Amino acid sequence: MARINEHYSKLQAGYLFPEIGRRVSNYAEAHPDKKIIKMGIGDVTKPLCPAVMQAFHEGVDEMGQEKSFKGYGPDKGYDFLRNAIIDNEIKARGITTITADDIFISDGSKCDTGNILEIFGLDNSIAVQDPVYPVYVDTSVMAGRTGTTNEKGQYEGLHYMPCNEENNFIPEIPSKKIDIIFLCYPNNPTGTTATKEELKKWVEYAQKNKSIILFDAAYEAFIQEDNVPHSIFEIEGAENCAIEFRSFSKKAGFTGTRCAYTIIPETLIATDSKGNDVSVKKLWARRHATKFNGTSYPVQKAAAAIYSPEGKKQVEETIAYYMENARIMKESLQEQGFTVFGGVNAPYVWLKTKNGMKSWDFFDQLIEQIQVVGTPGSGFGSAGEGYFRFSAFASREQVIEGMEKLKNASL
Amino acid sequence: MARINEHYSKLQAGYLFPEIGRRVSNYAEAHPDKKIIKMGIGDVTKPLCPAVMQAFHEGVDEMGQEKSFKGYGPDKGYDFLRNAIIDNEIKARGITTITADDIFISDGSKCDTGNILEIFGLDNSIAVQDPVYPVYVDTSVMAGRTGTTNEKGQYEGLHYMPCNEENNFIPEIPSKKIDIIFLCYPNNPTGTTATKEELKKWVEYAQKNKSIILFDAAYEAFIQEDNVPHSIFEIEGAENCAIEFRSFSKKAGFTGTRCAYTIIPETLIATDSKGNDVSVKKLWARRHATKFNGTSYPVQKAAAAIYSPEGKKQVEETIAYYMENARIMKESLQEQGFTVFGGVNAPYVWLKTKNGMKSWDFFDQLIEQIQVVGTPGSGFGSAGEGYFRFSAFASREQVIEGMEKLKNASL
Repeated sequence: MARINEHYSKLQAGYLFPEIGRRVSNYAEAHPDKKIIKMGIGDVTKPLCPAVMQAFHEGVDEMGQEKSFKGYGPDKGYDFLRNAIIDNEIKARGITTITADDIFISDGSKCDTGNILEIFGLDNSIAVQDPVYPVYVDTSVMAGRTGTTNEKGQYEGLHYMPCNEENNFIPEIPSKKIDIIFLCYPNNPTGTTATKEELKKWVEYAQKNKSIILFDAAYEAFIQEDNVPHSIFEIEGAENCAIEFRSFSKKAGFTGTRCAYTIIPETLIATDSKGNDVSVKKLWARRHATKFNGTSYPVQKAAAAIYSPEGKKQVEETIAYYMENARIMKESLQEQGFTVFGGVNAPYVWLKTKNGMKSWDFFDQLIEQIQVVGTPGSGFGSAGEGYFRFSAFASREQVIEGMEKLKNASL
Repeated sequence: MARINEHYSKLQAGYLFPEIGRRVSNYAEAHPDKKIIKMGIGDVTKPLCPAVMQAFHEGVDEMGQEKSFKGYGPDKGYDFLRNAIIDNEIKARGITTITADDIFISDGSKCDTGNILEIFGLDNSIAVQDPVYPVYVDTSVMAGRTGTTNEKGQYEGLHYMPCNEENNFIPEIPSKKIDIIFLCYPNNPTGTTATKEELKKWVEYAQKNKSIILFDAAYEAFIQEDNVPHSIFEIEGAENCAIEFRSFSKKAGFTGTRCAYTIIPETLIATDSKGNDVSVKKLWARRHATKFNGTSYPVQKAAAAIYSPEGKKQVEETIAYYMENARIMKESLQEQGFTVFGGVNAPYVWLKTKNGMKSWDFFDQLIEQIQVVGTPGSGFGSAGEGYFRFSAFASREQVIEGMEKLKNASL
């Protein structure tokens, strides 16, 4: 008799974004005449840039000719893309500890961050920021790394690190030993960042405790300020204690095109139960070769084009567009008397509701009163209660209209 | 202190195909003047067909315009592709039990077959054919579903079902209850098939024992004979006991383009530890939504094009080309006195070595003597020892040259 993985039954309701989709659909069905402004899900809206388009078409063309046709690609991705990443994302930031061989090309950071724990034993303790991107938590639950939830909706066995106004959205260094720590900067959902000094403390903690930091840098391209690191590997010693996740999704509008990568330094070591050192990169390479079959060739070719001179310029222009949206949102919300975070080095604006209104109540009020969709902070964890996320990936017109409408709402 | 998943250390050596690659590279480096004929890895060589190329380019074009740009797609894939599959692969075969909602589009069957066990408890017993596609076994090991290997290289805890000349490569129905059974037809690596009558016995077994059959039909497009089912769902009752994996990789040359799908019937039920019924499809939908972010839009558009009238014709032509290769191989090998299986409804020819020569010895002899690469049967399991796989995905010239050379080898 086939039996299910019962850990799935511990999961709370649906994944956050389908739940938002459901509520929006319900409203739209009941009010077919109302125009809805969507600033909820962090999905890009601008098309692929011309340099990417050209390379994408060229990649497709190669697949139509016997001489240039590509079958199975290298598990870890094509060298042309891995080398372009090294030159433009690693060396260009002064990082000398990472080589092209440490780069694993994939079809998405959601998959990578969801799968990475597979190579670590179930006995590791795991810490997550709160609020947090739900994938880290839900995949831990599905793999049986947690118990059930408490009254706050927190899973037994996970170490939650509250990030709020009081600690400037940088979690406190844990007082006990934690084996694996998920950190996300620029942060989703709060849009806040960590400076080099702040990340240095985490690297020191990890080195001291032989912990591993799983650093999600999916939003690094949106950083505008000089003192904010783009990569954890800008911190000395991180090559011995960190894995980094990067994506073309937000940086270059690849959410529907699918390409990302994970960086695992050659020097990253974990231990087996006898205390022997084991290369983490080798384990991930084995998983990648066994459970994944490479990223689409034309997609890899398209991704590499963001590093051409034209590609760089075009990608920067689109990012500037989104960041101007974020600026407009932030200013407008502040004028309206909201306390607002993020939006300077990330495409997310994180606001505190007024009078302690609950996040989902704020969500429901917004859609009912003014047909504006955002993301309830509590959907990202209990410390997100009373907060709300707006995404700057909408069009300029939508952002301006949405903020105007918000002024007239009674919240 | 971060600890590894120690189950990885139970894995034997490397994944089969990288090992072959390594031996071929070693030979090529030592003999740079020798031309090597590759008929080992089951990777296609013919380019994408014109209908697919056109749709692929159109899909890319849509990504370059704001109006038609696609961000995150539906988790389970676009309806245009799911509906095309239903019309052309399901209804066209007279199957009425599967709907478009049962189709999950993905980036590959390797990923799907490797990930599917995640939704089932660790306490399920698992059966695999022997020889077998290594992914089913290796991913079971990595997830901690097995012990270590015995002297035959078989993992403790897996139920191996020998497939050989004696049983016509159809495993015996197990005498004990097995919860989850991997079956692959047309079979990789043996190229053999199962008739409806034979599959019916398996469906009956699964119904009786509330087992689930994981049916890998990646090679169904190569079936030439009428009495060979293309889908397990052609068997009555399979909708209550089977999941099917399908791929565009071999059918339409998508090994480097990446698109596949999994079919989980609405009516497929497994149980929890209290004996409650749970929808398997819902569990996979939750996994898909949490750990996967959809298949590239232009790739899905390209895949759907194989169902246009031109697409169908073009895909059929390429398959006919490969199957003619298989026929040439099979005839030549038989003339040379080899006992040969497969090659009629699958692009693989499975030969028995002469005088009981070991599979890897045959591999080494072939490359040393005549620079022809195939796949050692023992790489697929201990029951594959003394067998050898040739893939028909090479060019006609290579197949003819390879077979000629084989005639002059002393094996």
